[in-house]
Amino acid sequence: MRSPVDVARLRWMHFIALCMLLLSAGCASVRPDPLPSWNEGSTKQSILSFVAKVTTPGSPDFVPVPERIATFDNDGTLWAEQPLYSQLFFVLDRVKTLAPLHPEWKTTEPFASLLKGDVKGALAGGDKAVLALIAATSTGMTTAEFDAMVNDWMAKAKHPRFNQPYTSMVYQPMVELMSYLRANGFKTFIVSGGGIEFMRPWTEKVYGIPPEQVVGSSGKIQFEMRDGKPVLVRLPALDFIDDGPGKPVGINLHIGRRPILAFGNSDGDLQMLQWTAAGNGPRFMAFVHHTDAVREWAYDRDSSIGKLDKGLDEAKARGWLIVDMKQDWGVIFPFDKK
Amino acid sequence: MRSPVDVARLRWMHFIALCMLLLSAGCASVRPDPLPSWNEGSTKQSILSFVAKVTTPGSPDFVPVPERIATFDNDGTLWAEQPLYSQLFFVLDRVKTLAPLHPEWKTTEPFASLLKGDVKGALAGGDKAVLALIAATSTGMTTAEFDAMVNDWMAKAKHPRFNQPYTSMVYQPMVELMSYLRANGFKTFIVSGGGIEFMRPWTEKVYGIPPEQVVGSSGKIQFEMRDGKPVLVRLPALDFIDDGPGKPVGINLHIGRRPILAFGNSDGDLQMLQWTAAGNGPRFMAFVHHTDAVREWAYDRDSSIGKLDKGLDEAKARGWLIVDMKQDWGVIFPFDKK
Repeated sequence: MRSPVDVARLRWMHFIALCMLLLSAGCASVRPDPLPSWNEGSTKQSILSFVAKVTTPGSPDFVPVPERIATFDNDGTLWAEQPLYSQLFFVLDRVKTLAPLHPEWKTTEPFASLLKGDVKGALAGGDKAVLALIAATSTGMTTAEFDAMVNDWMAKAKHPRFNQPYTSMVYQPMVELMSYLRANGFKTFIVSGGGIEFMRPWTEKVYGIPPEQVVGSSGKIQFEMRDGKPVLVRLPALDFIDDGPGKPVGINLHIGRRPILAFGNSDGDLQMLQWTAAGNGPRFMAFVHHTDAVREWAYDRDSSIGKLDKGLDEAKARGWLIVDMKQDWGVIFPFDKK
Repeated sequence: MRSPVDVARLRWMHFIALCMLLLSAGCASVRPDPLPSWNEGSTKQSILSFVAKVTTPGSPDFVPVPERIATFDNDGTLWAEQPLYSQLFFVLDRVKTLAPLHPEWKTTEPFASLLKGDVKGALAGGDKAVLALIAATSTGMTTAEFDAMVNDWMAKAKHPRFNQPYTSMVYQPMVELMSYLRANGFKTFIVSGGGIEFMRPWTEKVYGIPPEQVVGSSGKIQFEMRDGKPVLVRLPALDFIDDGPGKPVGINLHIGRRPILAFGNSDGDLQMLQWTAAGNGPRFMAFVHHTDAVREWAYDRDSSIGKLDKGLDEAKARGWLIVDMKQDWGVIFPFDKK
């Protein structure tokens, strides 16, 4: 017969055993799929395998946490870039708002075409036209004023096709991927041709990426004292274009080490992927391929926005991952989720 | 009389109580001083008080973790800058090494004076002379080659007065301060007039600051393909000077939000402190004042290196912290520790 002391001990041991069982069950089987919007298949598997091998201590491919740098293009890789870059929609809206203060725009290109509703005509001037539009709408103010302007626009503007705020036009699978990488010790960076200060006001909320991990194109900025208060003024002069061969330069300037994982979607990301691939140890290079004309858009070699031509050839030749949006993504935008 | 079950329960409760006692004792009294190289007094207390108030949940001065941005000048704030900036010693050593390949330097300034051992004469040409020296010694190579050169020099070169490696010429109290801030959720950044790529090879090991948290001056960099391999080449052209009014610009470009704490030591840091002070909520601005001619150097208003004049006046007028090196620091360099 058991003494009452034995019974108390036994009960206690049962309780401990139950706790351990519950804990281990919680760890092993209740863990949810970290990439629920990615369809099962070789694409999803290649991501999971890469993360597993670089994070397994003792693995020959193990990468220490500080070196787990992942870089992502923004337009077309993290959010939609069709029918025009979101920043261009922002600039076009600013032109309309400012037009009453600039009667001369009625007869000056690219403003004149734009105000007549002819966006294509306005952009026919190429980079020069775009820079003129940016200078006219996004400079000559303080950084704080520009910040407020971007926040204000993001809160009100809607995408012309989906009638959703632009910050909802992000790719749910990519948001999940970046979150999964961070949970595995990666530091995630945006490396975009877009304006660095156009992205920073909202990337933390939307992508979980803080301002100090955003790399982008920028204009010259000047420190000034105004009424005894220091301000930073946006000047109408280009400082840096973070696109194409500029991307490895931007990565070097802002991050100071080579990524081990890089995601892009266009030829403007090719040099970033080449730079990533040229490092030692395990590497992961990928392009998002826009193949879904129904849920998003289908475009590559002939597109004026997000052209993917040389990059597609090099990715195929070198075995980089090509994400087939139509096939690999169960959900595209967050608002698609049931 | 107690039953055996009661006795077992009582023992268990005693055990639990003992564990809690040990845990709380561990938290309260065994916790070591986070700033052992700072002498007790108002300076140390002001640092501890600031960190306590911004990290106490519910405090009106509480600052969320992502906004706990702390920026530090490097030369004269984190490590010694006398009798010359370390980067200048590096450049002078490079001139001597490269001289046999440049017979024309024997008759060209600033090289000629330098090779005769006349450092003062070589630097008489001011910024122009310094830039010529940097262009001749630190450009025309890849970033990887420059990296290796810096590492190599750091491993061998010794400071002329202390006969210690330059990476040992760091201020122990500041190393402790940065570590203490990080333990309290701060992100620590270097914002230095020194070359960004001269600092990055060693800041992680010496200060615990990763390359992506180093802001500095830089030259232009170009992406090139060499024998099918991508490289970044250092061009002989200035890109950005991260000094004086350049510091808030560098902070804006690399960090994208305003620091809540900034430490400098010279007038070149004044705008960084002004920019930090101009934000809302709790702020902490400080200058390291070089007052110890015995253990380090004593200099301020009349020094050609690390001049602190306007900054000293403004710090006094606005109540910013002025760290008196002689009085406030029990230890200066790590090698001073017993």
